[in-house]
Amino acid sequence: MDFYSLLIENIIIICGTFSYAVSGAFAAMQKRLDAFGVIIVAFVTAVGGGTLRDLVIGDTPVFWIKEPSYTFVIVVAALLSMFFWKNVKRFKKTLFLFDTLGLGFFTILGIQKGLAHNLDPGSCILLGTFTGCFGGIARDMLINNIPIIFRKEIYATACILGGAFYFVLDALNVENSISELLTISLIVVIRIVAVRKQLVLPRFY
Amino acid sequence: MDFYSLLIENIIIICGTFSYAVSGAFAAMQKRLDAFGVIIVAFVTAVGGGTLRDLVIGDTPVFWIKEPSYTFVIVVAALLSMFFWKNVKRFKKTLFLFDTLGLGFFTILGIQKGLAHNLDPGSCILLGTFTGCFGGIARDMLINNIPIIFRKEIYATACILGGAFYFVLDALNVENSISELLTISLIVVIRIVAVRKQLVLPRFY
Amino acid sequence: MDFYSLLIENIIIICGTFSYAVSGAFAAMQKRLDAFGVIIVAFVTAVGGGTLRDLVIGDTPVFWIKEPSYTFVIVVAALLSMFFWKNVKRFKKTLFLFDTLGLGFFTILGIQKGLAHNLDPGSCILLGTFTGCFGGIARDMLINNIPIIFRKEIYATACILGGAFYFVLDALNVENSISELLTISLIVVIRIVAVRKQLVLPRFY
Repeated sequence: MDFYSLLIENIIIICGTFSYAVSGAFAAMQKRLDAFGVIIVAFVTAVGGGTLRDLVIGDTPVFWIKEPSYTFVIVVAALLSMFFWKNVKRFKKTLFLFDTLGLGFFTILGIQKGLAHNLDPGSCILLGTFTGCFGGIARDMLINNIPIIFRKEIYATACILGGAFYFVLDALNVENSISELLTISLIVVIRIVAVRKQLVLPRFY
Repeated sequence: MDFYSLLIENIIIICGTFSYAVSGAFAAMQKRLDAFGVIIVAFVTAVGGGTLRDLVIGDTPVFWIKEPSYTFVIVVAALLSMFFWKNVKRFKKTLFLFDTLGLGFFTILGIQKGLAHNLDPGSCILLGTFTGCFGGIARDMLINNIPIIFRKEIYATACILGGAFYFVLDALNVENSISELLTISLIVVIRIVAVRKQLVLPRFY
Repeated sequence: MDFYSLLIENIIIICGTFSYAVSGAFAAMQKRLDAFGVIIVAFVTAVGGGTLRDLVIGDTPVFWIKEPSYTFVIVVAALLSMFFWKNVKRFKKTLFLFDTLGLGFFTILGIQKGLAHNLDPGSCILLGTFTGCFGGIARDMLINNIPIIFRKEIYATACILGGAFYFVLDALNVENSISELLTISLIVVIRIVAVRKQLVLPRFY
């Protein structure tokens, strides 16, 4: 992988970890947890999806054990979140923004890991969807919220559509880093549009 | 393994996956989740036990990553469940039936995996019990029900008795596929009798 | 490892397993679960931290599958807990004592596993903290309590301080078994002092 692609990879990893850590920190502060509780929820949200992905693929030790800088990014994200808490006027929108960014980044990180293990596109999209969604699910279960995946919003669907879009771009021979960034953007756009227009999936039963 | 045994193996895997997927779909529809929520709960219930089994044994990548047909069976089961939802008059009994069938099938799938890894009978029964029960536990925790394992019913006990029965048949040199089918039947019968007669384990304290 | 060190290792493993099994059994009896529910919660509490540790490190099959004596210790602990339930006058204090002992023992078991896999001290402390805390978290999530880690007590902090203390002793060339026992003692003391004096971490936001 050339320097530019490797840089994009690392930016996605750091941004995804940071975003989901902020998302977890904000959710914890909403529940008025102490400083360590905030850091722990930030950690679980940020590593949850990647850990599940690494476990089911069989890629152990998991990334945050092998590489301490993830923990550093998470702690920094949690501390910054606590520091800026009072200045954040639009709390709900900030939480939503970072959660949506994390969803996009981690879906791509899941798809990448699937490709690295030679999975077919369908399994890559499945793995990407789980990697993207599970951080938020773990965060919500830990602090006793209704998991975001069940709040009648377009959530996992955004990951699946994003994943499918990635492979369409791939089939059109779009350069990999561009495909990744476009996919992340699509997932973020789908989430923003869906929440703004209050789109819901029909129940079909 | 001869053709007949391999066929029985695959039937058990497909039936277990289908049964627990229907069980998860019905539980999700009871909570009025959207179409994707139903598919997700069906998926978690169907793969939860087998995933835990594969992770603790160390058999990765897990089965649903390696073999996309599991996901296909789950989605079909979820769609059929949503399609037939309105026609199901005895909802509670249907949910119970598919959950009980899943419990039996997955207990055997856990025991099989233990035998394939040369575990002693006690560890096989333990693994089978966890594989059988965990799908329902994951489903209940995900949608915020009291885990079925705690509803004062004979649940895990059925798996343990079934597992012990399997090794009794094995010691009597009963052919393996017959032992498996008889064990599944016993677990199902124990559950049906226990619930019908409202048998409970004493508390002993 | 000489005989004395191996003996200390095994004592820590058995004591940790026993302590967390009692802690889980007591929590289950508080919820009035049946005999199997008590054994299951005892099992989950006792194996939860070690299982997470083994999975993220990649050391499979997990310990309780490989070695049936863990299950034996857990069942004995659960049965003794049920037998002595009525005689336990200071229920809350007993639960706290066994949970605190388990926290200390399992933090060391996590650090040990990290050292065996050549992790740096920071990652060892991280692994030790997760191994120590996760048993209690799994227990609380399973029986629908607020996870102990969020009850505004000094909990994970005790593990982190204990882990740091371990590596200080190690740098001072203190013999390993002594370091382990001193670390466990420090974690227990921190917890007792923190709860007795109702010390809480500030919220910082």
